[in-house]
Formats: sequence, C-alpha cells, structure tokens
Amino acid sequence: MFDLLEGEALDSSTYEAQVAELRADLLDAQYELLDGKHASVVVLINGVDGAGKGETVNLLAEWMDTRHLRTEAFVEPTAEEAQRPPLWRFWRALPPKGKISVLFGNWYTMPILGRALRSVPKKEFAEQVDEIRRFERLLHEEGVVLIKLWFHLSKKQQRKRLQHLEKHRHTRWRVTERDWANFAKYDRFAKISARVLDATTTEAAPWHVVDGSVNGRALVAGRAILEALRAAKSRGDAAASHASAAANVPPPPPSSTVVGEMSVGAHRLRTLPFSERLSKERYEPAIEAAQARLNGLARRLGGIVSAGEKAPSAPARGVVVVFEGMDAAGKGGAIRRITHALDARAYGVVPIAAPTPEERAFPYLWRFWKPLPGDGRVLLFDRSWYGRVLVERVEGFASERTWTRGYQEIVDFEGQLLKHGYVLAKFWLAVSKAEQLKRFQEREHTRFKRFKITPEDWRNRDKWDAYQGAAGEMLDHTHTAAAPWTIVEADDKHLARVQILETLADQIAAALGD
Amino acid sequence: MFDLLEGEALDSSTYEAQVAELRADLLDAQYELLDGKHASVVVLINGVDGAGKGETVNLLAEWMDTRHLRTEAFVEPTAEEAQRPPLWRFWRALPPKGKISVLFGNWYTMPILGRALRSVPKKEFAEQVDEIRRFERLLHEEGVVLIKLWFHLSKKQQRKRLQHLEKHRHTRWRVTERDWANFAKYDRFAKISARVLDATTTEAAPWHVVDGSVNGRALVAGRAILEALRAAKSRGDAAASHASAAANVPPPPPSSTVVGEMSVGAHRLRTLPFSERLSKERYEPAIEAAQARLNGLARRLGGIVSAGEKAPSAPARGVVVVFEGMDAAGKGGAIRRITHALDARAYGVVPIAAPTPEERAFPYLWRFWKPLPGDGRVLLFDRSWYGRVLVERVEGFASERTWTRGYQEIVDFEGQLLKHGYVLAKFWLAVSKAEQLKRFQEREHTRFKRFKITPEDWRNRDKWDAYQGAAGEMLDHTHTAAAPWTIVEADDKHLARVQILETLADQIAAALGD
Repeated sequence: MFDLLEGEALDSSTYEAQVAELRADLLDAQYELLDGKHASVVVLINGVDGAGKGETVNLLAEWMDTRHLRTEAFVEPTAEEAQRPPLWRFWRALPPKGKISVLFGNWYTMPILGRALRSVPKKEFAEQVDEIRRFERLLHEEGVVLIKLWFHLSKKQQRKRLQHLEKHRHTRWRVTERDWANFAKYDRFAKISARVLDATTTEAAPWHVVDGSVNGRALVAGRAILEALRAAKSRGDAAASHASAAANVPPPPPSSTVVGEMSVGAHRLRTLPFSERLSKERYEPAIEAAQARLNGLARRLGGIVSAGEKAPSAPARGVVVVFEGMDAAGKGGAIRRITHALDARAYGVVPIAAPTPEERAFPYLWRFWKPLPGDGRVLLFDRSWYGRVLVERVEGFASERTWTRGYQEIVDFEGQLLKHGYVLAKFWLAVSKAEQLKRFQEREHTRFKRFKITPEDWRNRDKWDAYQGAAGEMLDHTHTAAAPWTIVEADDKHLARVQILETLADQIAAALGD
Repeated sequence: MFDLLEGEALDSSTYEAQVAELRADLLDAQYELLDGKHASVVVLINGVDGAGKGETVNLLAEWMDTRHLRTEAFVEPTAEEAQRPPLWRFWRALPPKGKISVLFGNWYTMPILGRALRSVPKKEFAEQVDEIRRFERLLHEEGVVLIKLWFHLSKKQQRKRLQHLEKHRHTRWRVTERDWANFAKYDRFAKISARVLDATTTEAAPWHVVDGSVNGRALVAGRAILEALRAAKSRGDAAASHASAAANVPPPPPSSTVVGEMSVGAHRLRTLPFSERLSKERYEPAIEAAQARLNGLARRLGGIVSAGEKAPSAPARGVVVVFEGMDAAGKGGAIRRITHALDARAYGVVPIAAPTPEERAFPYLWRFWKPLPGDGRVLLFDRSWYGRVLVERVEGFASERTWTRGYQEIVDFEGQLLKHGYVLAKFWLAVSKAEQLKRFQEREHTRFKRFKITPEDWRNRDKWDAYQGAAGEMLDHTHTAAAPWTIVEADDKHLARVQILETLADQIAAALGD
C-alpha cells in the first residue's frame, strides 16, 4: 500500500560521502523553495520508539538551513490547546510559504496512542482518521507539501535497541518505564499503525516507511524529503508557466456574475418581505432585557457567579459567532449591542478584511483557526471564512475550483468547532437594495460615519445580483442542521438587533442545559 | 501630582452632541496614526470597580474603528502565562505601529491587588512598581504612546453604585461577592492606588484621573486619548521633518568605527591566547560524556525520569541560552552539539537575523520576549538581543542614543528572566581574525557550506575592529554577577564545544540544586 524504503547499513566513509552530497542537494532545494514561495512543506516524523526519529530530526536540522526550518514536537495537549479543537495546535504550527516545519509528534500521535491503549472507542477513532484524511486533503489543495515518514523496527529489533540503550551509561536515560510498557503492546501498536497508514496513504500524501534498524535511515528520510521538494518545485514551475501563459489571454467574465438558475437560498433572500418594524418605545426595553439575559448566560458560561448564586463552576466551551451580510446591513451595530452586554474580559471581536501578505502565505482557513476562543469566552467574527464563497468568488480572487471546494472545507471546519463543543451562531443580515442606498447616502453626510463608506462599497453595490446569488448558494451548501444560518431581516435595525441577541442567548442557554 | 480631570453631568442632548464631535475627531486622529505609523498606542484602563471602566471601553470601541483597535483584558495569569515572567503577556499584547490596544486589566492590576490584599510583601511590591517604571520608560523610548486612565469613585459613591446595580433586575448580575469584599477594603485600596499613581506619574506617561461618578466620564476619557494622539502626531511630524532635513546632510562617520580608549572587555578579547587545543581522540569521549550529562539534567528539568529513578516531579523553569560571536565563530555547530543531546520535544532554536517588517513595527525587544520558553524547556538564541549593541551599532542601524540605552534595557530584560527563575547562559564565541579567514575560505570551497558565506560576511570582516570594540563595550556593560558572559576561545572547535556544554550543564545543575 505504501512506499517501503529499504535502508542500508553503510560504512563510515560511504555514509559521510553520501551525506555531503545529500546536504548540498537539500540546501539547494530548500533555497529554491524559499525563492519560489510556491509551497510550504510539512514533514511528519512518526513510528516506533527507538527507530531513530529523534536522531533524524536532529540531522535534518543540521543539514538544512535552520533559519527557514522549524522543528516542533507535540505530545499531550497543553491546557490552552485542550480548550480548542484537536487540530488547532497543528494549524498554529503550519509554516508560511517558502518554509519547512518538521513535526515530531503530530496529528497521528494521539489517535494511534488512544486506540492502541483502548482509551478511544473504535467509532471515534474511525472519525479521527477520517478527519485527518480531510485535513491533509485541504493542506494539499492549499499548496502545502506533506512528507510523511514512518520509522519502522521489528519487535525483535526494538527489544534489542531498548536493551542496548539501557546497557550504556551515557544512553541509559533514553529508556523510560513507559517505553517498556509500550513495548509490551508492540503487536497492538503495529496493528493499529498499519491500519492508520493504510487509511491515510493517498496519492497526494503517501507514507514513506523507513527502515529504522540501519544507520542509513536518515539518508533515506532526507532523500524522500529531497524528492518531494523537487516534485513540488516542478508543480510550482508548471503552475507559474500556466499562469503566465494565461496572463496573455483576456480573462473570462467572472463566473459569479452569471447566476444561472436561481438557487433555493437565492430565492429565499429575494423573497424576504422586510415588512415588520419595531418602534423605539418597544425596542429599548426589549434590547435591554435581551442584553441582561445574555449577560447572565455569558457569565455562567465563564464560570462566574453573582452574589447569592450557587458556587462557580468550570467555564463551559467558548462561543463563536459569525456575522455576514451586504455592506451597511448593520453588522457592526449588532456586534456592539452584544459586546455592550458582555464583560470586556470575556469577548473578542475579529474584523475580517482582505488578507495581509502574512495571512496569504498560509492556507486560507489559518487566520480563522488562530483566534478561536478558550473556554468561557465569546468570539465575534465581523465577516468570516465565508469570504471565500462570497467576495473571493464574486471578485474572482479565488478560482472556481477553489471556491467550490470551499463549501466542503467550511462544513468540515464548522463540524470540528461543533464537535469540540463550541456554540456556533451564524447570522446573515439581509438588507434590501433600497435600504442599502439610504444608508450609504446617510454615511456620506455624517462626519463620524464617513469612514464607513468608500468607493469600493459603491462598486460592490453594482454587483448586487452577483453577491445575492453567491449568498444564496452559500446558504444552500452551508445551512446544515448542526450549523444553521439565521437569516435576519435587517432593514429595521431595532428588530434585527433584538432577534440576533435573542437567538444567540437561546443557543447559549441550550448549551448550558437550560 | 497627576492630572485630575473634572467630569460633568450632562443632559442627554448635550452629551449626544459632544459625543458626535469627539467621535469624528477621534476617528480622524486614529486614521492619522494609521497613515503615519510613527507610533503605536496603548490605553490603560484602571480604577475603582463600578466607576464605568467597562462601559468606557465599550464606548471607545464603538466610537473608533475597531479594525485598528483591540481591546484585551488581563486578570489572573493563565497556566501558559504563569510559566513566563510577569510582563510576557503584556509584551504579547503590544500593538504594532499605527494601531491601538486598550488594556483593561494590565500590569497595574496584579501588583495593586496583591499589595492591597497583603499577599505581596512591601519590598516585592516596591520592586514591581520600579519594574513598571522602567518598562514604561522603555515603551516611551520605543515610540509607544501610553495613555493611562484611572477611574475614580469616592467610598460613598462606590457604595451607592453597587447598591444601585443590585436593585435593578437587569444589572444585578454585575455585582459579585468579591466586589463587596473589595469594597470593605476601600480605604486600603485607595491608599495603595494613590501610592502607585504617584510613583508612576512621569512626564512621558502621566496618569489621568477620571471622575467616574458622572455620565460625561467617557467623554473625558475620549478627550484624553484624542489629546495624546494629537501630541504623538506632532512629535511624529517633527521627527519626520528632522529626518528629511538630515537626509540632505552627508551622514557622520558611524561612531562605532571610532573606538577610542580601549574598554576592559575589548582588551580582554584582544589578549585571548588561543593556544589550547583538544585532539579528536580526547574530544570524542569528552563531548559524549558532556552530552550524556546534559541529557540527564534536561530530562530532570522537564520532570521526566528514566526507569529506576524516583518519581517524576513538576518541570523546573525553562533555560535561555544566548550565542554571540563573530561570523564563523562556530555558533551553529555548538548549538547542534547541544540539541543533539536533547529530546526534540524539549527545545527550540531561534535564529536571529535582520528584523522583518512585522518585527520592526514593535519595540525592539518584542521578538525576544515572544518565544520565551515554558517550564522544563530549553530555548537557544543563535544571535540575540545583543544585536542592538553590536550589528545595529556598528552598521549605524540604531542611533547612538538608542544603542546606548540598549545596555540598561538588556540588563533589565535579563533581570526579569533571572527573577522569574530561568537559567540564563550567555556565550561569546571568540575567534581570531586569522582563523575566521581560514573558515571563510573553507566555506567557499565546500558545496554544502557555501550558503554560509555571503558578500556581507566579507564586508563585516572589514569592520573587524569596530565589531571587536563594540563587543568589548558590551562585555563591560552586560557582564554582571547575576548574568555573566562565558568567553569561549573558539579557534579550536573541539575545546569550544566541550566548554560550552559543560558550562551549560553546570548552570542547569546548580539550578536543580545539585
């Protein structure tokens, strides 16, 4: 199923000569990666204890230019990491384009350990493996080159290795009681590992199994990396020459401006009545009551109690709130009505604009993973990951292939948030075209609102139908039972704000078991 | 001593009108800050509970453009934060140039609380206040505008406020038992706070005391911020016009090339004998023994035990190691001899080159604070914060005023590392001019070493005396009893590596109480 790399036992001078050549080649390849910036590279180091993983990691760091190569090791999650979905810490460790990360202990470590020690049930294990497959596919699509190395030892070889280490005064420290305890379960580990390797060997990210019993193992690992770097370069070159050829042809009209048959979601958006209104007299007590309720819920979420209430508990999982909608739909105002109801220590607001050059060097979802909240905290996204299937689609910043796969990636991402236990609330603030015009004009005439209106807003308004079409298809693909959209008729700001606060409060209350 | 800002009780329409004007002015000032990028801004919000701190934070977020303003709240340190020196989390929260951070709960919170509740002894409290003064001076020197707002209520006003909140169904949640417990200590808090405000009111960063009893308090706070933003802008403009005037004058010769009377440190460097040698036969067992020893110590540091040893303990504080020296002095090789002896999960290497544009937008020390290690971990800096008084001085990247104050800032920084309990080891790898030439030539002739030699290395070699002079003065100013330099004669790599590993092992052993 997977690539088996035969190792060689080399004599010292052969070994040195081969290392010298490989080092030079690896360095060349590393600088080409750095100059080209087509891809980033993640090297996964896994396998049997005592098979030379640590030594190989050290050698790779010696052979390559460590200014552009990072080594990170992951075992048990820290307290901070345990408050986020399992993949959070690995998203944080992804390298930007041009750089290499060697992950020693990674997303395979805990699933294999958990299943081998039977602390994770079969069904959950299968889900974990499936999640890994989807994660690696996403990385591949986003230009991350994955090099997966499995260091193998037979049972007999591992016993010999552990005994050998224990014998020598200077290496005895390497063998812990846990090593022997794991060795006793060698067969079980072998069975689970083989299953994982089978299930996660894909064309884009195959496993390379390295014979850990011979001294040439680091050479074998280094050559696998070299080959992958070279393959990535040719793909990058091909893509670049394709792009430069394409630059000579006039671009096709953006597919998004042609919204063909109307989707269910688009129809829904087009037929919103926008008829209800909430007077100021009824609004003020209503929003105040909703804020007070949200207050209380958020404090319980954070494990804080007021005088006279029962003892504080541990904070619950965090809350993630998404605001999307056309320009001037009232996202900012709604967010402020929420934050006014919260303790300043308990929330964050993340405004999403065009990605910075730094953000562009990472896979698309990276900047949304990064700020995910810890337990008891509320995080509000003012625009979000839906930009991929909205603005990036309509403006042609993402290729059709890219935004199309975006739907599934978003559903996967939100699935991980929900599985972790976050409350996830998604609001689409729908505003009519006439109301938007009114608000644009008002912004232009109020001194402290002028910063909110730019020529770009007017240009976007010209593409109203394309945006509405994209929003409709977004609703079709991402309105799921687990993560539903709340469509808010936002022509009346009062009504919209009360609805948003009440919906959010309902979702938090449900999560707290009310 | 400090600026007392009288508040006003305003009727609703006056209030609204003043807010509209202030908002517009604040936005203008915010965009000027963003365009100019002369400074970053930190707003500290402190004071009596119930005096409108939270409300003011919310209003500021409403009035200004939150894409360029962040609010963060700090109370008790998290587990991750507790493993680093107290200021670590605030360094992480500093905004880049052009941006504003509002810190609600900040470096004043824990010292005041600790002293008011008598959990921190007087002497330690005095040190904390002193540390704050030095930290704020550094921020000011590095172009951070500090706006310190203290929200005040009299004892009678605070009681009334808490009672009022408790009466109303929608605000009752705001009052916790701790609020009343703190209220019972009002006089004590008032005394300690007044002392802190007195001691930390400086010309560069004065306190503004805001009357928290009236509705105009947010206006008062907003105006203090506006004034500071405007003052920062005029300073920035003055600096810019000064810089452009200076651009028409030929630059003076870099002061660093003129090393006048020879410093003690420079004399020491110049008179190193470079006479000892260690043969390969004696080197190999010596380095292996040193590595084994370092292994064992690092594992104990990390709370890991080998089979047969006593039960694991909590990890000890981390280890910070600094490598400095002329080009080709052997820093990389020495670092690898250390990392080969460590578990890949237990260390990090941070190579320091010229700062990136992102790093340049923060105070100089920011990028060294950021990676500081957690408990049980070893962090190796391949070049370090000493760049300010070496390369930045010699190449004229830092003004004389800047690198001169660098000595004290470095001593302060290292003092904080030591006080926190880190092991701090600093190595100057001294190489002779002849040996450097030999190594440069070797690098040019070995294929996999060529990346290590650039035209810049040759240019730096031409400034040998200036670099040696700067290094000597660095030794004079930063070789302290608490954080001594180890000067390593590095013409013989074998000798240098063994000395470095043994010195590091000695320091860790001492910290572990051996």
